[in-house]
Amino acid sequence: MNVQNSGHGPVIREMRITPIAITDPPLLNAAGLHAPYALRTIVELETADGIVGVSEIPGNESTDEALRLAEHIVVGKDVYQLGRLQQELEVRFGKDTSKDRGDAPWDQRRLVHVFSALEVACLDIIGKLVNRPVADLLGGRMRDAVPFAAYLFFKYEGAGGKLGFSVDPNAIGWAAARQQQAIDPEGIVAQARAMCEAYGFQSIKLKGGAFAPDIEVACMHALHQEFGEAMPLRFDPNAIWKPETGLKYGREMESILEYLEDPVRGQENMAWLRQKLRTPLATNMCTTSFDEIPASIALGSEDIILSDHHFWGGLRASMELARLCTTFGRQLSMHSNSHLGISLAAMVHLGAALPHLPYALDTHYPWQSEEIIAGGPLKFQDGEVPVPAGPGLGVDLDRDALARLHQQYLDCGLKMRNDEIEMQKIHPKWTFKKTRW
Amino acid sequence: MNVQNSGHGPVIREMRITPIAITDPPLLNAAGLHAPYALRTIVELETADGIVGVSEIPGNESTDEALRLAEHIVVGKDVYQLGRLQQELEVRFGKDTSKDRGDAPWDQRRLVHVFSALEVACLDIIGKLVNRPVADLLGGRMRDAVPFAAYLFFKYEGAGGKLGFSVDPNAIGWAAARQQQAIDPEGIVAQARAMCEAYGFQSIKLKGGAFAPDIEVACMHALHQEFGEAMPLRFDPNAIWKPETGLKYGREMESILEYLEDPVRGQENMAWLRQKLRTPLATNMCTTSFDEIPASIALGSEDIILSDHHFWGGLRASMELARLCTTFGRQLSMHSNSHLGISLAAMVHLGAALPHLPYALDTHYPWQSEEIIAGGPLKFQDGEVPVPAGPGLGVDLDRDALARLHQQYLDCGLKMRNDEIEMQKIHPKWTFKKTRW
Repeated sequence: MNVQNSGHGPVIREMRITPIAITDPPLLNAAGLHAPYALRTIVELETADGIVGVSEIPGNESTDEALRLAEHIVVGKDVYQLGRLQQELEVRFGKDTSKDRGDAPWDQRRLVHVFSALEVACLDIIGKLVNRPVADLLGGRMRDAVPFAAYLFFKYEGAGGKLGFSVDPNAIGWAAARQQQAIDPEGIVAQARAMCEAYGFQSIKLKGGAFAPDIEVACMHALHQEFGEAMPLRFDPNAIWKPETGLKYGREMESILEYLEDPVRGQENMAWLRQKLRTPLATNMCTTSFDEIPASIALGSEDIILSDHHFWGGLRASMELARLCTTFGRQLSMHSNSHLGISLAAMVHLGAALPHLPYALDTHYPWQSEEIIAGGPLKFQDGEVPVPAGPGLGVDLDRDALARLHQQYLDCGLKMRNDEIEMQKIHPKWTFKKTRW
Repeated sequence: MNVQNSGHGPVIREMRITPIAITDPPLLNAAGLHAPYALRTIVELETADGIVGVSEIPGNESTDEALRLAEHIVVGKDVYQLGRLQQELEVRFGKDTSKDRGDAPWDQRRLVHVFSALEVACLDIIGKLVNRPVADLLGGRMRDAVPFAAYLFFKYEGAGGKLGFSVDPNAIGWAAARQQQAIDPEGIVAQARAMCEAYGFQSIKLKGGAFAPDIEVACMHALHQEFGEAMPLRFDPNAIWKPETGLKYGREMESILEYLEDPVRGQENMAWLRQKLRTPLATNMCTTSFDEIPASIALGSEDIILSDHHFWGGLRASMELARLCTTFGRQLSMHSNSHLGISLAAMVHLGAALPHLPYALDTHYPWQSEEIIAGGPLKFQDGEVPVPAGPGLGVDLDRDALARLHQQYLDCGLKMRNDEIEMQKIHPKWTFKKTRW
């Protein structure tokens, strides 16, 4: 181990940016349909001493380009100089604005993604240098395993992949169940049972916004009937409901929900609805950046911020957000997009270090069938992921898998996420609407 | 260097708590008169491997007692487990409330002091383990040296010490100047000139609240006349003014102040005055803890929070406060009480790591003539203190000096700060008033 003096320490010699495409099932959401592939970008930083740190962020051609443009800022930096790195990136790219986020459920801002990618990889290196898990660099673990929720989706039949919607007739267990159609209460309950059986989840979330409210709310009641009082349930129509719809269906679910996520669009509408419902409101769409916090506090937009270290600028920023939430009586939990094990490991280290973790976190992980970390997917025990034991993030890249999924990226032709286009392949006249019902 | 695995890492074997008394000059403030000695407590944590981390906090018998009561929580802890340490201390002692702070200019809360002492010593150990300065554990240095302001006081003649008010006729330079009386514009200007000459300060603060506003404000105008436009000036009457007094004298100083610190008492009065003055308002008295932030934001109490890692629960909490300030458009700077080099080193590491440092920090350091760090007092260059070069805090205890100042503590009989009693030795009928003018 080669730990050196300040200012002459572990310096980044090389940055490698590898976009990958991972097979994704045809999941439905308010913005359309998941493409057969979800895009991720894997960032590797290597120090002059050959220590490699990794990170994973949502894939987007423009983020990759920004990462490439940042290379001269990154290379030569000491991995501990995170404040200066952020400052120089802000000067280079300008701060994101909340407008840059876009109207889709996912986040398209550039700087937060770039800095998250670099910070996590630097923390991975620091952890390896000092032989400590990343959780310890964030204040130490408050818990040894981090709970996640079953994340249900309305979906068409199929498993995704190059041909889209392909079905593997030999699949068994959850791998078989995740191929099944789920567009009604029966399908959703079956999906929940299979996913909970496979992973041991103790909370359930349904991503809605795909069908009319009465169908989706019926699914929530079916889940409640199936799993009973002891199973916390959440529902997320991705801000596609009008305020009066949020009020009507919010009240219909008041007795069965742990929280209601983004029922309506915008901080004002959320604040209005929050005054009228007893159910806590959560968001990853109306309060998504530090810029939006002052208005959130002034209006009272939500009870729970579903943070995402990819969107909030990294793990240390997420710890700062946690302090901010505690200060203002908000709770903090975590949002997820389709992701692999590097992102999951980062989420677990952060989740382990957060002073308070009142809710099981979101993850798309069960929907993914491919992995780039050595040893295959991280394991869940009773719905929880134990903090990886090794130093840093505690995961290693499987370079063959990385190469294969990069080739898949090149082959599939996708450059950024667009669920509207995918939906139009099935329903040609379908268009995204910010508010639908 | 012995860096070990998570959970089996550098474990604290022993905690040593050493109260000390340091010679302090007869400085005046709104709460009375500095005693001949200022109290500090030095905390040492030693790991099973013999690595020692140090910290320094304001001395108070009840804080020392709380530290002793925390020993069973501290001993056996891994130095990285800061979140868990804080949680267990909160359970043991209960969270501080803003009421616990007291009405004096200094802070009497228990948990924040205890946690600050332990956190800084743990960070010192971690820094030594990984051979990096504490600044690097906070995100890395944004600057290599941290600017401080000249901190002027109204004072009686004398240098403090066992007899109080004693004068060393052989003193030269600043050591001679700091013995001089300063109770009028002439004395204050002379003090400023001597202190700036010795330390190279580029900003000046006067602690007021000791005399009637017209005398103190005349001193500020005299400083402005002496040093000109280029020298930023601050004035701090320690919240002893009525709102109308704050308005009248605030306006009289509007053209000469960089900021006005705690002109009036309480967030409401500060918010009222802030609407009426162009001068930015700073505080270390009306918004002093995370609990008080929501009301500060709702009311708009101040422009600048003068944090103090001893009162806000450590260095990492101070970084979180910095994010909070940035989020809500507040600036962050630093408050000081009488202190020695360990506290100064911690302030410098924090100051180096803060993303933004728009104002020179406060320090009482020039007023102290004793030191407990090896090699004597930290040096100022042009009013700035370079980040100490070594790992951790970069300072080492001078054990002889520590023993001597501990004996001085035992001999002097003081157990907590009480400037009212000291003032009554000179002016028997003097009593502390929360609002005087």
